[in-house]
Amino acid sequence: MTKTLLLLPGDGIGPEAMAEVEKLVAVMNKEESAGFETEKGLVGGAAYDAHGAAISEDDMAKAMAADAVLFGAVGGPKWDDVPYEVRPEAGLLRLRKDMELFANLRPAICYPALASASSLKPDVVEGLDILIVRELTGGVYFGEPKEIIDLGNGQKRGIDTQVYDTFEIERIAGVAFDLARTRGNKVCSMEKRNVMKSGVLWNEVVSAVHKASYSDVELTHMLADAGGMQMVRWPKQFDVIVTDNLFGDMLSDVAAMLTGSLGMLPSASLGAPDAKSGKRKALYEPVHGSAPDIAGQGAANPIAMIASFAMCLRYSFEMVEQADRLEKAIADVLESGIRTGDIMADGCRKVSTSEMGDEIAAK
Amino acid sequence: MTKTLLLLPGDGIGPEAMAEVEKLVAVMNKEESAGFETEKGLVGGAAYDAHGAAISEDDMAKAMAADAVLFGAVGGPKWDDVPYEVRPEAGLLRLRKDMELFANLRPAICYPALASASSLKPDVVEGLDILIVRELTGGVYFGEPKEIIDLGNGQKRGIDTQVYDTFEIERIAGVAFDLARTRGNKVCSMEKRNVMKSGVLWNEVVSAVHKASYSDVELTHMLADAGGMQMVRWPKQFDVIVTDNLFGDMLSDVAAMLTGSLGMLPSASLGAPDAKSGKRKALYEPVHGSAPDIAGQGAANPIAMIASFAMCLRYSFEMVEQADRLEKAIADVLESGIRTGDIMADGCRKVSTSEMGDEIAAK
Ligand SMILES: CC(C)[C@H](C(=O)O)[C@@H](O)C(=O)O
Ligand SMILES: CC(C)[C@H](C(=O)O)[C@@H](O)C(=O)O
Repeated sequence: MTKTLLLLPGDGIGPEAMAEVEKLVAVMNKEESAGFETEKGLVGGAAYDAHGAAISEDDMAKAMAADAVLFGAVGGPKWDDVPYEVRPEAGLLRLRKDMELFANLRPAICYPALASASSLKPDVVEGLDILIVRELTGGVYFGEPKEIIDLGNGQKRGIDTQVYDTFEIERIAGVAFDLARTRGNKVCSMEKRNVMKSGVLWNEVVSAVHKASYSDVELTHMLADAGGMQMVRWPKQFDVIVTDNLFGDMLSDVAAMLTGSLGMLPSASLGAPDAKSGKRKALYEPVHGSAPDIAGQGAANPIAMIASFAMCLRYSFEMVEQADRLEKAIADVLESGIRTGDIMADGCRKVSTSEMGDEIAAK
Repeated sequence: MTKTLLLLPGDGIGPEAMAEVEKLVAVMNKEESAGFETEKGLVGGAAYDAHGAAISEDDMAKAMAADAVLFGAVGGPKWDDVPYEVRPEAGLLRLRKDMELFANLRPAICYPALASASSLKPDVVEGLDILIVRELTGGVYFGEPKEIIDLGNGQKRGIDTQVYDTFEIERIAGVAFDLARTRGNKVCSMEKRNVMKSGVLWNEVVSAVHKASYSDVELTHMLADAGGMQMVRWPKQFDVIVTDNLFGDMLSDVAAMLTGSLGMLPSASLGAPDAKSGKRKALYEPVHGSAPDIAGQGAANPIAMIASFAMCLRYSFEMVEQADRLEKAIADVLESGIRTGDIMADGCRKVSTSEMGDEIAAK
């Protein structure tokens, strides 16, 4: 059975990081007859330069048809002044929305070899393993009206709308509870119900889903601002966190930074299982950005991209054993003191993007 | 000249903490003829229990008339199920809105004596002194529509609206730039212009204010999610941060937690200068909450409340020397190893709320 992958390397360090995944795919096809078929497309600034849009219709169609999309990173100073509608991020947001990738899984794990790289005390982050489940197709990212109105007199009004419907909260809560059962069996739901009506509804629906189908899982609720505090104070209190699109954006970035492993963290964005085939549409991307300042120098850390591919093996192709092996290879390479510049430490050996990829492939 | 203060102790540890400020006021009236006249009112759950509202019209009128309002904390499990409109927080939100307290100043400083209490490495937080200037009367907190609609079929829709007008952004930017000039002369503005139209407008207006009147101040822009990351990575890169109501809520809580001094941090919420008198309406409150679990035991740390009173001296009464003295007294007491339970450390002397107040008053 062939497995189709659409590779969208994007901008900045995206292409360099993606090249290391391409190596792995080639190795797996050759040594294990894994049967991956890859296509490549453009997204972000690269797509804007080629087509004047942040992703072409053709590449969107390929994304919709692929078994999984691997996404690098988008953006850079070159496109800071392009119109809002075609800014690099618009390509990513369209992929999320059109593919209905409502569930964004962002594991924040602290690799033992990197605990000392965190700005937090080692005992606070050592062994940290939390999973943020972020709603990705709703909330203030997509609600209408979203506009700037000219009020005259030199005054403008900027408007964004946060909207959540019951079904959107139900399905993301379901994903969080299901995943909790495979881990520490705890979910903490975060919103601002003391200020936002969408937060009131969020709280109510998550509680109802819990009561109806997941009473074996421990559920707690936290206000999102207190959640941010607790994340910094003692992150190990959390197992799975479920939250909305905007809070998830903020909280997952804070969580990523805690681990000291920012350049290493992957994410998966999943749709609902197809009624017939049971397959989910899916996109996998590193949590880090396009890092235009170091692009093209072979200095980028490809681990987040490679770990995103490991999530792809796990969630899109049920290649659990291979995913485990790949994740172990990453940890082993780090353990053996091989580092890209961003995570360099005393006594370690500094390698390039491509050497890091080779080392992991070799393991 | 008399100076009128309205004290709104609120719920939980609010009253205990406020009692220590009352001591200080009495001392200052007696020893320095400071001329404070205090009145007391109810807010939050306490007001709900007495009047069925989170603040009475009578107390609102007193707040509008006072030179300054000192606010303790609101909320607790007792009121978790009261209707949304009269929940404890509604009292605070109404005070902010009706008094037009658009500028919320949240200093995050790390007391040297407490640097080791932070979950961050000491070198990351030692000497930290940042000021978050949060917009407080706009954004998603107050925008309309804000409602839950019943869509039938068991589906509901929660809606909140983020709205910012040019003038709202201009005035908060002005406050941030003015304050930066009295400090490190740097402002970092945070929004999500890559996703939110209000963020696009925010960015544009802050830049315009900078260009027109504050080009001597260094201005940078950061996406709010990246800002959260950078706050955890290396917070000392910041001097003044200016941001909207919701991002300010999240980011200031994270910043507070970094310092290890959460129970010690004050805030000031200021209105525009009155056209005639030049006086600003003002409310001062600790950053911490009502901590119902330790209320009534004399275990609360009154320092945040006392430091809020110091901000009151500084910003409402231009008693700069007294404010400096009070802030120094707090640092000295901490330096001398006197601690409430929340910040207890080896070799320190543990004291009650009221002993801590006495020690500071004595200094
Ligand atoms: C690039 C941007 C639109 C995006 C977001 O805000 O969702 C990014 O920050 C992320 O977290 O994936
Ligand atoms: C109590 C609550 C309404 C409030 C807010 O969200 O603004 C609090 O978190 C704060 O930061 O002052």
